[in-house]
Amino acid sequence: MRNSLPLVAPVRGFSEEEFQLRTHRAQVQMAEQNLVGLLLMTEPEVRYFTGFQTLFWQSPTRPWFVFVPALGKPVAVIPAIGAQLMHQTWIDDIRTWSAPTPSNDGISLLVDLLLPLSTSRARLGILKGHETSLRMPLGDWEKLVESLPGLQMVDATNLVQGLRMIKSPAEIEKLSYICSVGSEAFAQAPEFIAVGMPLEEVFREFRRTAIALGADDAPYVVGGADQGGYSDVISPPSRRPLKVGDVLMMDTGCTWDGYYCDFDRNWAIQRADDQAKRAYDVLWRATQAGIDAARPGNTSRDLYLAMSTVLSEMDGSGGDIGRLGHGLGMQLTEQPSHAAFDETVLKENMVLTIEPSLSYGNGLMMVHEENIVVGPITSRLLSTRAATELPIIG
Amino acid sequence: MRNSLPLVAPVRGFSEEEFQLRTHRAQVQMAEQNLVGLLLMTEPEVRYFTGFQTLFWQSPTRPWFVFVPALGKPVAVIPAIGAQLMHQTWIDDIRTWSAPTPSNDGISLLVDLLLPLSTSRARLGILKGHETSLRMPLGDWEKLVESLPGLQMVDATNLVQGLRMIKSPAEIEKLSYICSVGSEAFAQAPEFIAVGMPLEEVFREFRRTAIALGADDAPYVVGGADQGGYSDVISPPSRRPLKVGDVLMMDTGCTWDGYYCDFDRNWAIQRADDQAKRAYDVLWRATQAGIDAARPGNTSRDLYLAMSTVLSEMDGSGGDIGRLGHGLGMQLTEQPSHAAFDETVLKENMVLTIEPSLSYGNGLMMVHEENIVVGPITSRLLSTRAATELPIIG
Repeated sequence: MRNSLPLVAPVRGFSEEEFQLRTHRAQVQMAEQNLVGLLLMTEPEVRYFTGFQTLFWQSPTRPWFVFVPALGKPVAVIPAIGAQLMHQTWIDDIRTWSAPTPSNDGISLLVDLLLPLSTSRARLGILKGHETSLRMPLGDWEKLVESLPGLQMVDATNLVQGLRMIKSPAEIEKLSYICSVGSEAFAQAPEFIAVGMPLEEVFREFRRTAIALGADDAPYVVGGADQGGYSDVISPPSRRPLKVGDVLMMDTGCTWDGYYCDFDRNWAIQRADDQAKRAYDVLWRATQAGIDAARPGNTSRDLYLAMSTVLSEMDGSGGDIGRLGHGLGMQLTEQPSHAAFDETVLKENMVLTIEPSLSYGNGLMMVHEENIVVGPITSRLLSTRAATELPIIG
Repeated sequence: MRNSLPLVAPVRGFSEEEFQLRTHRAQVQMAEQNLVGLLLMTEPEVRYFTGFQTLFWQSPTRPWFVFVPALGKPVAVIPAIGAQLMHQTWIDDIRTWSAPTPSNDGISLLVDLLLPLSTSRARLGILKGHETSLRMPLGDWEKLVESLPGLQMVDATNLVQGLRMIKSPAEIEKLSYICSVGSEAFAQAPEFIAVGMPLEEVFREFRRTAIALGADDAPYVVGGADQGGYSDVISPPSRRPLKVGDVLMMDTGCTWDGYYCDFDRNWAIQRADDQAKRAYDVLWRATQAGIDAARPGNTSRDLYLAMSTVLSEMDGSGGDIGRLGHGLGMQLTEQPSHAAFDETVLKENMVLTIEPSLSYGNGLMMVHEENIVVGPITSRLLSTRAATELPIIG
């Protein structure tokens, strides 16, 4: 590993004031929308309002619930195995059961909590919209709805995602740190990438490097390598050895304290053909157009159009990826989407990926990606900008 | 790292025959239950029937669907970004859309596929039961149900989980390999664990070791360390340095080719008190009782009772973990649960964790865990059995 200065990690966690502020902002909107509360059950939402952070969500066995009332602190309704950890957060009202209990996994606790609110068609906010899922058994959800006939379940996706899209200074500090770790890992990658190395080994060494540099983990490492480009960006790595003339792309989501970076790098192995160089150049400039367009007042659609204009020099389809970037934070991909359909107005402290892709040649594609934070007037890079020309390594 | 023989990884992926057999077995049961098909949308289920494997599921943005018909091959209804990868599987009928499209994320494609089946209250199997979730927006699910009034949505959780519980020889080979990698990583851990090392660094070095030894990743690394025991097993690691007299536990889910190991190890730092030694001994023998009881014909409840009998020498509560082990495979935790409520009959080729825990002293706990495969008569360890006495290291 290179002899570079170690990256200095910020403090883990958040102040209690941060959770108070998040809750207050939710409650202001809940009042406007006449909601008696929010019932949340997905990892980022539970963490956003409580600070409860654990890898244990990887186990699908137990549901976890947080209720954000119209007034007062959130209430946790969780498996007893999480009580000790939840007691370390700012939450006071923690209701637990011995989970798993398939016949009643938190349902009667939720009914006890919500039934008193269940009068005159009171409105309870839940997440039903784009990029959400129901992290509890559908059968249990149906039972819960049936037990609360006086509650109207209304969609609060925009409310919650709208809050989460704007990052706090402490969140931006975490995101900035993990982007620095990712940038340094990519900077060191040419030192271990060599012709003949199977892609699987490249990915393995990248993970080890990122973790050594300070990432808690590198859960998302994908990419491809083939002659003059690659044809897929979501496959697991193969044992195929890198060859002279390959274009190699690695895309990573590294994490620190529960926040992701998400960007990629492209390299040519020993030599690059003109087509690959040209694709790289078009993508570099498309990325720049996206970064330049990322100003408060512009929309995600504006970013998409700014990038598309440059991409159309070589290819108008934008590949099959469906969008040219997205939000970034506690999840690898968050709202908004840089796509024609998304008219989300950009605001200061949104953290975004700028991710143009293009198709060229015989079924090849290339993707660039950078991470930025929107400032008061322009945006600022969180990742170290990729080289202006396709780097030749190996 | 020690100079040990490298572990030899099996071949990645599965033969087409394996997917044919999985589909055939599902279809036999679908016929018995009078189902016109199964609609699946969660990662392990999509992978089980198609072989589609990608880390891209970490992005919550796009839903993915597989329909397993009563006869014939599964049909994939997926975002276009996955088409190239899905074409490498045994699936022929691949229907794609440019996702994300929040207004219609696969819904009209599903309606086109399912509406012809939608006659005379035909029964469509979906997952509504324990350990399942709805990995699509609830609002989209409601739209889909409304568009298919002739289809009765019935719970097929037992059908699908029942198939997945019994592992094939190729699955057992993958599980055996990743358990060997995990065992070797734990064997090497005492070489880098030292008094004064923050727990965060212990976890980081463990991850790097497991990946170097051949794990694709070590997504689940949790544990605790404190004087004479620990009080929590799901927290992220702290910066607290290891102290003389600590009991350190690390629990890991490492992955290889999409399959998990899940077991832990306990160590005392430089010295151990009698209480910690006794807890270790009781847990070692409880684990052995669980392993010995893991025979075809016994139930998960029998395993629970066999372990509880030993645990009651020191503590009858079994902590707040809710069960004493579970199934293992494509997920860190799968069916069944070793708990009083679970009367699942054990069968040959089930892969299980044996995971007794106990509470002792002033709020301390300890957990042991091993991984086994049930054989024709007895069970066989996949993890290298923990030392009989609490190892003193550091």
